[in-house]
Amino acid sequence: MKGARTRQSILERAVDIASTDGLEGLTIGRLADELSMSKSGLFAHFGSKEELQLAAIEAARERYVQEVFRPALGAARGYPRLEAICRAWLDYVRRGVFPGGCFFAAASFEFDGRPGPVRDAIVETMDTWIGALEKAIVMAKDEGHLRADVDTALLAFELNSLFFGANFAFHLRGDKLALKKAETAIDIRLKGAAVKKRPQRAAHPRTSSSRRRE
Amino acid sequence: MKGARTRQSILERAVDIASTDGLEGLTIGRLADELSMSKSGLFAHFGSKEELQLAAIEAARERYVQEVFRPALGAARGYPRLEAICRAWLDYVRRGVFPGGCFFAAASFEFDGRPGPVRDAIVETMDTWIGALEKAIVMAKDEGHLRADVDTALLAFELNSLFFGANFAFHLRGDKLALKKAETAIDIRLKGAAVKKRPQRAAHPRTSSSRRRE
Repeated sequence: MKGARTRQSILERAVDIASTDGLEGLTIGRLADELSMSKSGLFAHFGSKEELQLAAIEAARERYVQEVFRPALGAARGYPRLEAICRAWLDYVRRGVFPGGCFFAAASFEFDGRPGPVRDAIVETMDTWIGALEKAIVMAKDEGHLRADVDTALLAFELNSLFFGANFAFHLRGDKLALKKAETAIDIRLKGAAVKKRPQRAAHPRTSSSRRRE
Repeated sequence: MKGARTRQSILERAVDIASTDGLEGLTIGRLADELSMSKSGLFAHFGSKEELQLAAIEAARERYVQEVFRPALGAARGYPRLEAICRAWLDYVRRGVFPGGCFFAAASFEFDGRPGPVRDAIVETMDTWIGALEKAIVMAKDEGHLRADVDTALLAFELNSLFFGANFAFHLRGDKLALKKAETAIDIRLKGAAVKKRPQRAAHPRTSSSRRRE
């Protein structure tokens, strides 16, 4: 039990290091220094740097699911849930769930050119994430909230691009408006894909219609 | 003269290494091995790893400007030039100008959490790039090609996000449709920002108008 706790707390630190210095910067020596542990003690938990990197990816994924993705699933099926996932993502960068910004964006760009088990684990994680985004879009179409002709893969691609772009502008460029820009751009995309309700028999149908389009 | 050529050819290899393995993976030892040069010979060119990283960033920037950005500036001012810059970017990823994908996206995500001269050089490069995108958008507005109410900073943010998202999907996920998706998304953004010309007094005004919108 103590062993399990220790492993978990080591991994939390490992994830934070990797989020600022990259998975390649996550060495057993570095981690031992930061935790005031012996390298041999760490080797008992993780046999190699690669094992440590793989365990850090899994721990980061768990943190993301627990703190960001699962809460958003509490929103109602369809458009509200899709919107909640997008807002949770922006909030996740704003809150600094990982000190160096999005762990997965950084890992993706770090390992895209390096074949091996670490890259494979990142690809699998990102495929799962894009799949979850696409599933949320399909559900919003099934609920009649998004138009049936919306290109699911294209919309997921655009949303994820805006997430990465926001992370870049916020963390590298220090653009304080980055998350607001991303939120605006996402709103435009989602509302552009939403089913336009026909004006009801109200007193001012044009006002009602144009409001919904905004 | 020979010294200058050698330095340039060393840097070209350094840029390629950094594009796949990251700027942190670009060590003098690694570069010496790949070029079958002595480490001391490389130290004569670059006094330290950091100097080498800074020189690689400058060389990558030069390659980008020469091969991608400058040719796009040959397009007519306004919308054509803005569109040419976007297409040149996608083509740059497609052609593999850097073997590991976009050098600058990778460097941005690698160094966003690591203060110092390398990060500063990347920030300066990216600020220049986003500035160039914004300038192209402003020019398209000045020419009357984009609507005056288009949010310049937001559009530049969206375009850059789509570039990064395309690079990610293409290189990490191996999504063969990534560049096509980005092209479609960029077209939608640019055409949505374009001034809609009113139908002229032509024989078939509707056809004429819808053509311009496509």
